[in-house]
Amino acid sequence: MGALTLRLPSLTSLSLPRYHFCRQLCTPLRSVSAAKFSVQSSTVEKEIAATPPEIEPASQKPRLQPEKDRVITPRSQDFNAWYLDIIANAELADYGPVRGTMVIRPYGYAIWEAIQDYLNVKFKETGHSNMYFPQFIPYSFIEKEASHVEGFSPELALVTVGGGKELEEKLVVRPTSETIVNHMFTQWIHSYRDLPLMINQWANVTRWEMRTKPFVRTLEFLWQEGHTAHASPEEAEAEAMQMIDVYTKFAYEQAAIPVVVGRKSKVETFAGASKTYTIEAMMGDQKALQAGTSHNLGQNFSRAFGTQFMDENGERQHVWQTSWAISTRFIGGIIMTHGDDAGLMLPPNLAPIQVVVVPIWKKADEKAGVLGAASSVKETLQAAGIKVKLDDAENRTPGWKFNFWEMKGVPLRIEIGPRDVSNGSVVVCRRDIPGKQGKVFGISMESSALVAYVKGMLDEVQSSLLESAKSFRDSNIVDVSSYSELKEAIAQGKWARGPWSASDSEELKVKEETGATIRCFPFEQPEGAKKCLMTGNPAEEVAIFAKSY
Amino acid sequence: MGALTLRLPSLTSLSLPRYHFCRQLCTPLRSVSAAKFSVQSSTVEKEIAATPPEIEPASQKPRLQPEKDRVITPRSQDFNAWYLDIIANAELADYGPVRGTMVIRPYGYAIWEAIQDYLNVKFKETGHSNMYFPQFIPYSFIEKEASHVEGFSPELALVTVGGGKELEEKLVVRPTSETIVNHMFTQWIHSYRDLPLMINQWANVTRWEMRTKPFVRTLEFLWQEGHTAHASPEEAEAEAMQMIDVYTKFAYEQAAIPVVVGRKSKVETFAGASKTYTIEAMMGDQKALQAGTSHNLGQNFSRAFGTQFMDENGERQHVWQTSWAISTRFIGGIIMTHGDDAGLMLPPNLAPIQVVVVPIWKKADEKAGVLGAASSVKETLQAAGIKVKLDDAENRTPGWKFNFWEMKGVPLRIEIGPRDVSNGSVVVCRRDIPGKQGKVFGISMESSALVAYVKGMLDEVQSSLLESAKSFRDSNIVDVSSYSELKEAIAQGKWARGPWSASDSEELKVKEETGATIRCFPFEQPEGAKKCLMTGNPAEEVAIFAKSY
Repeated sequence: MGALTLRLPSLTSLSLPRYHFCRQLCTPLRSVSAAKFSVQSSTVEKEIAATPPEIEPASQKPRLQPEKDRVITPRSQDFNAWYLDIIANAELADYGPVRGTMVIRPYGYAIWEAIQDYLNVKFKETGHSNMYFPQFIPYSFIEKEASHVEGFSPELALVTVGGGKELEEKLVVRPTSETIVNHMFTQWIHSYRDLPLMINQWANVTRWEMRTKPFVRTLEFLWQEGHTAHASPEEAEAEAMQMIDVYTKFAYEQAAIPVVVGRKSKVETFAGASKTYTIEAMMGDQKALQAGTSHNLGQNFSRAFGTQFMDENGERQHVWQTSWAISTRFIGGIIMTHGDDAGLMLPPNLAPIQVVVVPIWKKADEKAGVLGAASSVKETLQAAGIKVKLDDAENRTPGWKFNFWEMKGVPLRIEIGPRDVSNGSVVVCRRDIPGKQGKVFGISMESSALVAYVKGMLDEVQSSLLESAKSFRDSNIVDVSSYSELKEAIAQGKWARGPWSASDSEELKVKEETGATIRCFPFEQPEGAKKCLMTGNPAEEVAIFAKSY
Repeated sequence: MGALTLRLPSLTSLSLPRYHFCRQLCTPLRSVSAAKFSVQSSTVEKEIAATPPEIEPASQKPRLQPEKDRVITPRSQDFNAWYLDIIANAELADYGPVRGTMVIRPYGYAIWEAIQDYLNVKFKETGHSNMYFPQFIPYSFIEKEASHVEGFSPELALVTVGGGKELEEKLVVRPTSETIVNHMFTQWIHSYRDLPLMINQWANVTRWEMRTKPFVRTLEFLWQEGHTAHASPEEAEAEAMQMIDVYTKFAYEQAAIPVVVGRKSKVETFAGASKTYTIEAMMGDQKALQAGTSHNLGQNFSRAFGTQFMDENGERQHVWQTSWAISTRFIGGIIMTHGDDAGLMLPPNLAPIQVVVVPIWKKADEKAGVLGAASSVKETLQAAGIKVKLDDAENRTPGWKFNFWEMKGVPLRIEIGPRDVSNGSVVVCRRDIPGKQGKVFGISMESSALVAYVKGMLDEVQSSLLESAKSFRDSNIVDVSSYSELKEAIAQGKWARGPWSASDSEELKVKEETGATIRCFPFEQPEGAKKCLMTGNPAEEVAIFAKSY
C-alpha cells in the first residue's frame, strides 16, 4: 500500500497567498515534492495571520492549474499540510471568497448531516424542540452581560447598512445566541408552569477570527446551540451534565473519538457561564481540540435580561439556564483523529459511504458477469440500509479506485473479480488495516450472509478506530507532579495531567511559558491526596494541560 | 363548536406599535373586541411601513400583559388580524427584536422540518447533493450580473465592520447565492465530465424588506436554494422544469395546496434569470402567494463570472444554469390556505401532531381506566408511525382541550371516555368538519383496526383539504376577455385569466391601475385562437392576473 509514496491525482491546487482547490480526476499522475507543500502551507498560515485582506482583488488571485496533480503530504512530515491536502483531495471543503470563510462541499456536508441525524434524535429524546432565532442581534444586547461582551466584542461582524440606509443601531451577526434567546424567554416565561423551557437551533454563526483553518476555526461555521431555562440551580446543573454526556456518547460511539470529559478552569470558562463542561479530543499531532461544550449559565443572563418566573410560592425568581453546542469543527476533529498518510479514515457510523464496491475485469467477456454481480451486491447492501456506492467507472483502473476511495476514508471496500463471480464470493478490505492484512477473501455473496458479514465488519472497524485512538491518547498523557515535569511533557507534545490548585495568574503563566492551557479538570479523577504541581499546596483535582487548536 | 364565538385564552398580547406574544394558558377567559384587533393591526402595518426604526428603545416597548386574554379575530372580519392571531395563539412564531425579523417557535419549526424531510428526499432522488456556501458575499460579486444588482441592491444588509475594524470591501449578507455559487463553480467545473453539477443548500437569507409579515415576508428567512450547472440549454431547461414539478407535487400532495403552475412574465422574472417558473397559491382572502420558483438562468451568471467548461469537442463554453427555492413563506401559505375561524388547520402530511388523544372522565374511579386506555391508544398509534400526542393535563377541561387543539390545527382528535373504555372503542373527530358531523363513534380500540382507521382518516382529511382548496380556487378564477372585465374581476378580489400579448408597459399599467400583476402564464392553457384582452392582437397564451402578497 506504501502510504508514504501514495500518489493520487491531487484535487488541490495550492498557490500563495491562499489555497485553491480544483477537481481534476482525469489528468495523468504527477508527483510534487511534499516538502514544497509544507513549506508553502506554513508561509500561507503566517501570511494570513499577519495581514488579512478581506477579499483578494481578482488580479492577484492565483489561477487554477488543472494540469498539475498533487500527492497528499505525509502526515508525519507536516500535519497541517496533510490536513489541508485531505480536505482538498477528499473534496470536504473549499475556501470561500471572503478570508476565513469556508464552502462545505457535498462529501463534507454529508458527514455533518450524519452528525445532525444522530444528535437530533438524542436532543428530542431528552425533551428539546428545535426552533429558529434571528441572526441579527441589537448591539446593545451583547453589552448587557459583562463578561459576555468582553469575550465576544473583539470577534463581532456588524451590519451597519440595511436597505441602502445607515442603521440607527448597528446589528451583530450572531456569534452565539444567549442574548437574543433571553430577550425572547422573558416574553415566554411567566410561571413555573412554563419551565423547563428546552430548545435547540441548528444555525450558522459568525466570529471574526484572525487565524482560521477549515472546519477548526472559520469566520462563519455551522452548529447547533441548545438553550434551556429551569426553575432551580439543581435542574440546570443536571441539564448541563446531561448534555455533555450526550456529546461524550456521541464522540465515543459515533465518531470513535475517545474524548476526555471534564470541567473548564475559570480562565477557560465560556464568557457568561458559571461552569463550562467540555469534551477534549486528542488529534493526531497530540494537540487538543475542544470538540463540544455544555455551559451552566447560572443566573448570569437571566439577571442581565430580567428573565423571571413566578415560583410555586408566588415569588418572582430569575431562571437558571444552560447552553451547549457542537459545531462543524467536529469534522476537523474526525479528520485529525483517524486520518493517515493514505488520506481520510471515517468511522462507519458517520461515513457518507460505508462500503464501496469495485468490480474488476480484464477480458471483455468477463465484464457483464462481474458488473452484474457487483450491481447485485450493491442492491443487497443498500436494501439492508448500508450506505454503499458502486464504482463502475470505466475510465479508471481498479488500483486507482482503491487509492481514491481509501483517500476518501470509506471504511470497507468490496472487490469482485471473475473468479469471485464463479465462486459466488467477494473480497472485503478494511480501510483501517492497510494491505493484505486487511483483506478477507471468499466472503459469500449470498444476501443474508453478506449483509451479516458486512454489518459485523463495519462494527469491528468502528470499534477498532476507537481502540486505536484510545491507545494513542493514553500513550500521550503523562502524569506530572511538578512544573518542570509539566514543561517537559508539553515540550514533547504530550498532554500533562497533574494536581492543580494554583491561581488564575499561575495558569496564565503556564500558557505563556509553555503554550499549554488547562483543557479541563477531568471527571475521572485519581484517588488519594494530591499536591498542586505548581505550589505544592493541597489540591482537590488533577487538571489536564495541553497545547490546543 | 361555534367558531365565531370561540374564546380561547389567547396567547397574543397586542400593543402599538407592534405585536408581542405571550404564553398564558393558565389565566381565565376574557373576551376582547375582535374589531379592535383589526383596526389596530392595520394601523400597525401602516406605521411599520412608514417609519421602520430598526430596534425599539426599551422604554417605548409595550409591556407584556399576561392578565389579558384574547380571542382569534374571525377570518371573515379581518384576514390579516386573523392570520397574526393564529401565529400568536398557535405559537408558530414571534417577532424578533430587530424590525421585520421573526423567531420561529417549535410548533412552526416542526412544520418546516416536515417540509425539509420531504423535499430532501426528492432532491436527493433527483440527483442533488446538499452543501453549504458562506453567507458573506463580496459586494463586487453582486454587481457582476446587471439585472441581479438592479433587483437586489435596494434590499441588501451590509457588514462593514469585522473584528473591530472597518472592512476594505463591504460584505453582503446573502439575499440569494447565485453569485457566490458561480464564483465557486468556476473553480470546480473544467470539463464536460464535471457536469451536470447539481447542489442544494438549506440556509438563512436576508432581504431588507420594508413591509414585513411573519412567514410571508421577513428580513431574514429560511429556505433551500438549489443551484445546477449543465452542458446544454436543453438540460438546464429540463432541470428547471423538473424542479418546479417537484414543488408542484409537494404543494398538492403534502401541503394540500392546489397551486397554479406556470411561467412568469418578463417583468416578473427573477433578477438574472432567462425564465422563471412559479407555483402560485390562492390564499383564503383570494390573494396570490408565490410559493416556490424555479429559474432557468441561461448563461447570464456563467457569462458574468466566466463559468466555463471544455466540451467534448475541446471547445470552451459557458455552462447553462438553474436555481430554485422554497422558503419558510410556505408556512404562511399553509396557514392562509386552510385555516378557519377556529384557527389553524394543518394537512396531515405536514402536521407536527397528526392525532391528539383526549381522555375524558368525571368520577375518580373512572380516571385510571380512561387514562390507561388513552395511553395505550397513544402507544399503538405511535408504534405505527403516526405523530400522536396524549393530552392528559389535569388542569384543563376536555372542552378547553378540544378548542385548543383545533386552534393548533391538529387533523384528528380521539376522545376516550368511560363508556368508550367499556365498549373497547373510541370517538374520532375531524378538524376539517366542525361539530357532530365530523365525529365518528364506536371505532374499535383493537390495534390493527384502529391504526387502519386512523391512517385512512388522515388520508381522507388530506384529500378533503385539497378538494376544498381546489373548489375555492376554481370558484375564484374568472375568465376575462377585455381590460374592463379584468378590472371588474380584480375589484371583486378574484383572479382574472385572459389572453395576453401586450407590452411590458401595459402590464405595468394594469399593476398601477388595479394592483394586480401577472402571476403566471399557466402551463395549462385553453385550446383555440386567442385575442389579447388589452390590445385585441393575437395572443398565444392566457395569463393569470391577481393581487398578491
